[in-house]
Amino acid sequence: MEAALARILPAAELAPQRLHAAMRYTCLDGGKRVRPMLAFAAGEVVGADETVVEAAACAVELIHVYSLTHDDLPCMDDDDLRRGKPTCHIQFDEATALLVGDALQSLAFDVLSRSGLNGPAEVRLEMLSLLARASGSRGMCGGQAVDLAATGRSLDLAELEFMHIHKTGALIQAAVQLGALAGGFLPAEARNGLESYARNVGLAFQVMDDVLDAEADTATLGKTAGKDAAQGKATYLTLMSVPEACGYARELLDRALAAIAPFGPQGRRLAEIAQFVVKRSF
Amino acid sequence: MEAALARILPAAELAPQRLHAAMRYTCLDGGKRVRPMLAFAAGEVVGADETVVEAAACAVELIHVYSLTHDDLPCMDDDDLRRGKPTCHIQFDEATALLVGDALQSLAFDVLSRSGLNGPAEVRLEMLSLLARASGSRGMCGGQAVDLAATGRSLDLAELEFMHIHKTGALIQAAVQLGALAGGFLPAEARNGLESYARNVGLAFQVMDDVLDAEADTATLGKTAGKDAAQGKATYLTLMSVPEACGYARELLDRALAAIAPFGPQGRRLAEIAQFVVKRSF
Repeated sequence: MEAALARILPAAELAPQRLHAAMRYTCLDGGKRVRPMLAFAAGEVVGADETVVEAAACAVELIHVYSLTHDDLPCMDDDDLRRGKPTCHIQFDEATALLVGDALQSLAFDVLSRSGLNGPAEVRLEMLSLLARASGSRGMCGGQAVDLAATGRSLDLAELEFMHIHKTGALIQAAVQLGALAGGFLPAEARNGLESYARNVGLAFQVMDDVLDAEADTATLGKTAGKDAAQGKATYLTLMSVPEACGYARELLDRALAAIAPFGPQGRRLAEIAQFVVKRSF
Repeated sequence: MEAALARILPAAELAPQRLHAAMRYTCLDGGKRVRPMLAFAAGEVVGADETVVEAAACAVELIHVYSLTHDDLPCMDDDDLRRGKPTCHIQFDEATALLVGDALQSLAFDVLSRSGLNGPAEVRLEMLSLLARASGSRGMCGGQAVDLAATGRSLDLAELEFMHIHKTGALIQAAVQLGALAGGFLPAEARNGLESYARNVGLAFQVMDDVLDAEADTATLGKTAGKDAAQGKATYLTLMSVPEACGYARELLDRALAAIAPFGPQGRRLAEIAQFVVKRSF
């Protein structure tokens, strides 16, 4: 993934140099790359073309990094640490961080629409359509808006999950779907299995994020710990205790594993990622 | 265009309501719609499918409106008036304006990748690829970065035109190319003619923008007049007098008209738009 992203991002020597340097700073050397891993693992289930899966993985990660860059801006979460480094607007400036996010979003759609990629154009159009919807106001961006509106007031479990299903779930879902689509259109049964897997992994990821935000320290996380509580954000821990949250994450993990059981050994990597998501410490 | 955009934008009743209301506020009831006009006029040259041209026109306009929304933010141009109305971050708030821009960019790629549009998938992929490159760091977004870097220092004509060819030119170019692509792949000669037309119209547009910014009042423009000089921005008027700039714009107009002369009567609308761009008063 590092090599693929480094190749796709414009060289820092190309004009406008400062913008390109900031794009590379923000995207490279950091991050768990969970979404790319999911895309590659879903691609493995269906024996997808490697170059198309790689383009899909890069596109999803570029959207993810753009959203982090904008999310860290002073008018949003106002954070100065991300992936163990100063955030883009701290390292460069606010205007540059805004443009970095904007340009990374364009680059995601550029990567996925490039000529020379293998496979039928119809499938690629479907991938682009999926990514656009997952990123937009009815997906990730809408989740951010719900998160903004929820800050400082309490949510019930249904409201909290509505927010997460959009804010992080939509893109995790897209990573799995795009990875699988890189192998062509899927039968409905396989599609539903992957959808259920992605939905449960996405929620488990968020539950554990809330636990780690409360329990781990800033050095381990690579981002500011304890931030959610300090900002009055609704989290799983405002609704349940840490042991309850860990139990809930394991329940979601079991559902995710059950959903991909029909794929047999082809689904091994997806299972490993689900385990990692629930058992990680950062 | 108003009807098409109103149909494409999510209804204000759909969750997240505030975001959707802000997206509609920002996109509807305002703007000259020069880029959509160009897309429709280029589509007419080649007898393109109406629904595909409409999707292309909407996609380009959504990218344009997103860029204005982000450009008006306090960390960029910090403007409070646009198209005769309070800017998005004044009417709503900064975080919402940031998300509005982000979601409008996604929506542009959503509109153009939707299933159910007529025409070959290969052509649509090419349209998406063109739009993504025109929007990104080597296109519009890169032009913004050059503009930022140039504020407060003097540019020569070559540097100024490099900035405009990216900042506004790339998307004007994309409007013409996408409109024409809605009719399928073009022979190289026709493509070059349209490219030269778009390049010259784009620059003429910018020259006249600079003249109007200096000469017209805020009420006529619908945005804050005299802003460029106040912000120490490089403009054509730092390099030439108003009569010289008007003469240069007419020269660019002549080049644009010559480039589409081979299209005969089919190019009538493109010619009219070029005239409008140079003779407009807002």
